[in-house]
Amino acid sequence: MPTNREIAAFEAGIKLGALYHQFVGAPVSPKTAASMEQAIQESISLQPYVQSVQVKIDRKMLEENAFGYGELQGKMIFAQVEIDYKGEVIRARLEYDLDRDYPMMRLL
Amino acid sequence: MPTNREIAAFEAGIKLGALYHQFVGAPVSPKTAASMEQAIQESISLQPYVQSVQVKIDRKMLEENAFGYGELQGKMIFAQVEIDYKGEVIRARLEYDLDRDYPMMRLL
Amino acid sequence: MPTNREIAAFEAGIKLGALYHQFVGAPVSPKTAASMEQAIQESISLQPYVQSVQVKIDRKMLEENAFGYGELQGKMIFAQVEIDYKGEVIRARLEYDLDRDYPMMRLL
Amino acid sequence: MPTNREIAAFEAGIKLGALYHQFVGAPVSPKTAASMEQAIQESISLQPYVQSVQVKIDRKMLEENAFGYGELQGKMIFAQVEIDYKGEVIRARLEYDLDRDYPMMRLL
Repeated sequence: MPTNREIAAFEAGIKLGALYHQFVGAPVSPKTAASMEQAIQESISLQPYVQSVQVKIDRKMLEENAFGYGELQGKMIFAQVEIDYKGEVIRARLEYDLDRDYPMMRLL
Repeated sequence: MPTNREIAAFEAGIKLGALYHQFVGAPVSPKTAASMEQAIQESISLQPYVQSVQVKIDRKMLEENAFGYGELQGKMIFAQVEIDYKGEVIRARLEYDLDRDYPMMRLL
Repeated sequence: MPTNREIAAFEAGIKLGALYHQFVGAPVSPKTAASMEQAIQESISLQPYVQSVQVKIDRKMLEENAFGYGELQGKMIFAQVEIDYKGEVIRARLEYDLDRDYPMMRLL
Repeated sequence: MPTNREIAAFEAGIKLGALYHQFVGAPVSPKTAASMEQAIQESISLQPYVQSVQVKIDRKMLEENAFGYGELQGKMIFAQVEIDYKGEVIRARLEYDLDRDYPMMRLL
């Protein structure tokens, strides 16, 4: 039987995996990043056991293509979720790891 | 060689296909539908040759699951895009077709 | 500090969240379900700490629309992942919960 | 009223937009590229008026991250669709444009 803390960690993973794979690929620019951040936050906040979601898109990484916009990539996303499963509180983060050049997800 | 009007129609199709397959599956509820609509509009507006994008999520179709939220489905989305390719203006729409029970995309 | 078992549970959650939100919305039919299952399995198997992934799409739930095909929905997917994080092995499952009418993800 | 040829062009756009935004972001590697190509081809082939779909993922562009795999990006995808709408046949292509560093979609 998993512990409540393991379940909370599992739920945190679901949220970050969902957030990433739902929204990566969406067109985005410095002007539209704020509305994308808010939509992602509100959307993922609906999922079970979520206490809070913060999302920040790195404007500096947003490269403009030949048509003047960019695309949401995993490495541009900072996201932190807080899960409360039966009193067990877990926080997890998606954050670009420069050394590995990888959008790292981890428990805090 | 395609005509400019055919290219405009092609571009309109790209936008509706993108909009649909990028965002379908996202958690959504009556409370968060407005931020999702705005994010989709602003995101798709960035793509080439777009003059305007309107998106409306049908709140009445948003069924709450056991955890009190829903998921964006194609049939809930009304979307209209206006494309201008070298002066050729094309409008296209995604709208639920009740008779066919299908999220229909068509040129206006 | 999270335990290795909590990290394994977190990683399992990531995989199921990713699988769901990457592929839900894709056109699918009884004839194409097998290639979709295989692509999802192989794709998610690439992610860190995955030992195995099994995916089964419920053909009976695949309703044909007016154009003779369907769309992948969460409730059609049975998926099981096995994670090994530093020797801690965790299995998790996505499976339709009929009572709640919800595509339930849980640790086994 | 749009011509049948404009509608065929519109339908071609839908398919390429769908293909791109459904599958970009999926984990992929040289070993799994073939099953992803097949799943995408079969999936998009189901959509209305499609005569054929060819998909090729550029293995040379597939960079391995710190965990030994990559992610499907638009610029890696070569895709060609053939649409037949009431006898009007249109072919369209998604192909990386090196000069613009952009995954270009165009009518042939």
